Amino acid sequence: MFAPCHVYYGTLIHSLSLQELEIIENGVLIVQDGIIAQIERNVENIDAFLAASKLDDYKLHCLDQHQFLLPGLVDTHAHAPQYVFAGSGMDLQLLEWLNKHVFPCESAFKDVAHAEAAYTKVVSRFLRNGTTTCSWFATIHLESCKRLVDVINTLGQRAYVGKVNMDQNSPEYYVETTENSLKDTRTFIEYTQQQQQQQQQQQENKGLVTPVITPRFAIACSSALMKGLADLAKEYKVPIQTHLCENPDEITFTRSLYRESASYTAIYDDHGLLGPDSYMAHCVHMTDDEIDLLAKRETGIAHCANSNFSLHSGLCDVRRFMAKGVKVGLGTDVAGGFAPSIMDAMRSSFFASKTIKALQRDQHNNKDYAYLQPAELIYLATLGGAHVLGLQDKIGSFAPGKAFDALWIDPTTSSGTIDLMGQESQTQIVEKFLFAGSDRNILHVFVNGRRVSGAAEVAIDVGDS
Amino acid sequence: MFAPCHVYYGTLIHSLSLQELEIIENGVLIVQDGIIAQIERNVENIDAFLAASKLDDYKLHCLDQHQFLLPGLVDTHAHAPQYVFAGSGMDLQLLEWLNKHVFPCESAFKDVAHAEAAYTKVVSRFLRNGTTTCSWFATIHLESCKRLVDVINTLGQRAYVGKVNMDQNSPEYYVETTENSLKDTRTFIEYTQQQQQQQQQQQENKGLVTPVITPRFAIACSSALMKGLADLAKEYKVPIQTHLCENPDEITFTRSLYRESASYTAIYDDHGLLGPDSYMAHCVHMTDDEIDLLAKRETGIAHCANSNFSLHSGLCDVRRFMAKGVKVGLGTDVAGGFAPSIMDAMRSSFFASKTIKALQRDQHNNKDYAYLQPAELIYLATLGGAHVLGLQDKIGSFAPGKAFDALWIDPTTSSGTIDLMGQESQTQIVEKFLFAGSDRNILHVFVNGRRVSGAAEVAIDVGDS
Ligand SMILES: [Zn+2]
Ligand SMILES: [Zn+2]
Repeated sequence: MFAPCHVYYGTLIHSLSLQELEIIENGVLIVQDGIIAQIERNVENIDAFLAASKLDDYKLHCLDQHQFLLPGLVDTHAHAPQYVFAGSGMDLQLLEWLNKHVFPCESAFKDVAHAEAAYTKVVSRFLRNGTTTCSWFATIHLESCKRLVDVINTLGQRAYVGKVNMDQNSPEYYVETTENSLKDTRTFIEYTQQQQQQQQQQQENKGLVTPVITPRFAIACSSALMKGLADLAKEYKVPIQTHLCENPDEITFTRSLYRESASYTAIYDDHGLLGPDSYMAHCVHMTDDEIDLLAKRETGIAHCANSNFSLHSGLCDVRRFMAKGVKVGLGTDVAGGFAPSIMDAMRSSFFASKTIKALQRDQHNNKDYAYLQPAELIYLATLGGAHVLGLQDKIGSFAPGKAFDALWIDPTTSSGTIDLMGQESQTQIVEKFLFAGSDRNILHVFVNGRRVSGAAEVAIDVGDS
Repeated sequence: MFAPCHVYYGTLIHSLSLQELEIIENGVLIVQDGIIAQIERNVENIDAFLAASKLDDYKLHCLDQHQFLLPGLVDTHAHAPQYVFAGSGMDLQLLEWLNKHVFPCESAFKDVAHAEAAYTKVVSRFLRNGTTTCSWFATIHLESCKRLVDVINTLGQRAYVGKVNMDQNSPEYYVETTENSLKDTRTFIEYTQQQQQQQQQQQENKGLVTPVITPRFAIACSSALMKGLADLAKEYKVPIQTHLCENPDEITFTRSLYRESASYTAIYDDHGLLGPDSYMAHCVHMTDDEIDLLAKRETGIAHCANSNFSLHSGLCDVRRFMAKGVKVGLGTDVAGGFAPSIMDAMRSSFFASKTIKALQRDQHNNKDYAYLQPAELIYLATLGGAHVLGLQDKIGSFAPGKAFDALWIDPTTSSGTIDLMGQESQTQIVEKFLFAGSDRNILHVFVNGRRVSGAAEVAIDVGDS
């Protein structure tokens, strides 16, 4: 492969750790075949730098003043089919909501044409909002799940896709037998991995869609199904995602089904579903012992604040998890959450954290609670999510060897939603992007070096690396 | 005046009461000189209707399928100068935040040119987001306050504008003497009322900017100042706005300054500042007695959920106020709240209400708490806000005699933020607008019949009524 490399020159902003947000002025990123080959800081003269470099063939892309590159956003939990009703039907709490809105919606995805149309809309929207990596729940339907993989491959997102498993406590019109559930999951994994391998052979650096084992939640899964899924995860070396401790009624019902397990979290552990490649959505109502168990198993969580508000599930205190070393990322949980955007997830998480701060002060007379700072929100939305998905060596920040999954942000575009007076510091501009920015401030969205979306009317030419 | 009237034909959606959202299919609105002259429901054939009507000269504006008209949004509480730092600096709670961010920002508005530039940005942005009526806090500076009135008159928003009063417990660089505060307020009221009268004489239906008495809050106002302001309000028949019970530390400090009053709310009452034309921002931490006092005085409140989250002030339970008949509207409280949008205020209020629902369930075992429904959120954002400002006979819903302050919504525009599958009910579409819509779905913003903003590239011709 001797495609030209791409040189990005300007302000680079990314997380080094939970609290360290690095702002690199006059940064240079050299991208070859979608991968960051080199990163340089404080390059005053780009022409001199390029002259001195040994680059054979390159294209230079200079960011304007105030513009910056940010790592692509990572959504660790979203339901692709539910986008159909996102923004409506938030009138119930979890279990009633599933029966009234979710199951009827998802069952319609038996229709492959409907699925393909809906999946194209949702993946396009997520990309437009800067979500370069997403962990998706699909439905129970094998063929439609394959189409979701195809749609994502076509649109160019990096993704984990799960065929949902449900063999009990589900409506008659939307349930599988244990046997079919396992069989279809095996077929789905093989299909997705084959697609991935084919793409990687055809063109380097592609094949960005990975299957993920996706039991809906313990209520909807028999013991036999969960054990079978754990075996499949081992056999094919694929990650596992599910829901955990979202809502008090759900927890009570779940525990009534699995009385032999010490806790809701222990149910998954007892079925072999917790491990370093597993991640759990929500975890709103957890005992310290349950958090300890997640920490011991190195299992991460997807914090879905918009959903927790919208379904009045409760407030998830992510500090409790971080304090014990549990990996935390952000999830939209579309359509429990109404917003198809990790920009929103950062703001919703900020609201949740500020609410916990106020309650700690008012109810527990604790004035020391540390709510989530802007830098921490950006970490959770990028590198934190990457850690949850086990992708911390591939994405989440700018470093040699990582893929170029990035957003080219213009905080000043006249069609955007940010107003600047001109005296703002770079830190203030980042905060304004976080709280007032929108997709219109995202000029270009890159996944693996390829431009896959963006607000700019003129795309920049980065070839099809 | 024989300007042509404007006939709008299509779906009209507005609140009749807190819970009743009327969806009028095939509605006709006839607007003459900015005022709604007639409203008709279920007109199947617009040509036949127009032929039978006695309209001399009219222009017909037909809404496309799925498009609808909504009353303009009402922001009952925002700080125009603070927009300069909106989206940044939410790292503190109220009193520290005022000293670190607000007072330095506001004091810079002594510079009239800076004020004019900043005010043009903030009012333009609010209009773009559909806020047709806004109650503004400016700063203490007379000349800059006048410029805000001029900017708003030019841009065409309906507004209440307050020169802020502060004569104690304020930084040396941003404080007034009692005497100057009262004198400048009198001058400001006279200036604004003169502008209003001149405009009304020149062109009918204009003169949309009203002065409002605006003590910052009891901490920053001496007893003499508050009494003097109450007298001015009576003398000039202008409304009164201030802050009340936002944060525990603020309440403690306030009460230490006015020990003779029975409560924070009673301080304002003891100084003659509560009445049917007064409205109080926040009211997060209020005793039942204080709410009773507001009810007795017929004083409304501005619920500012984004701000209450962002400054971790606490959760305001608006149901407690509504249950006692207190008028409630929504406020952005820019820049305590980071979003210059009542669309956001509806969503933030939804989050606050859902959080109270979860806490009532988890902490008080109360499963009956009724969180705010979409129809109620739309009421609060329109007719509710109109009631708070005493404008319920002029704006907030569609009825003969009311001004045509309206938003022309297109939920399907390809540049918008809503994705529809095509099978959505009208109610679902309204919910999707509420939760997923943005300024890009607002094609035209009308104030008093005049198009003052909107996302549409081609403005529609409604003259300059
Ligand atoms: Zn979920
Ligand atoms: Zn305020």
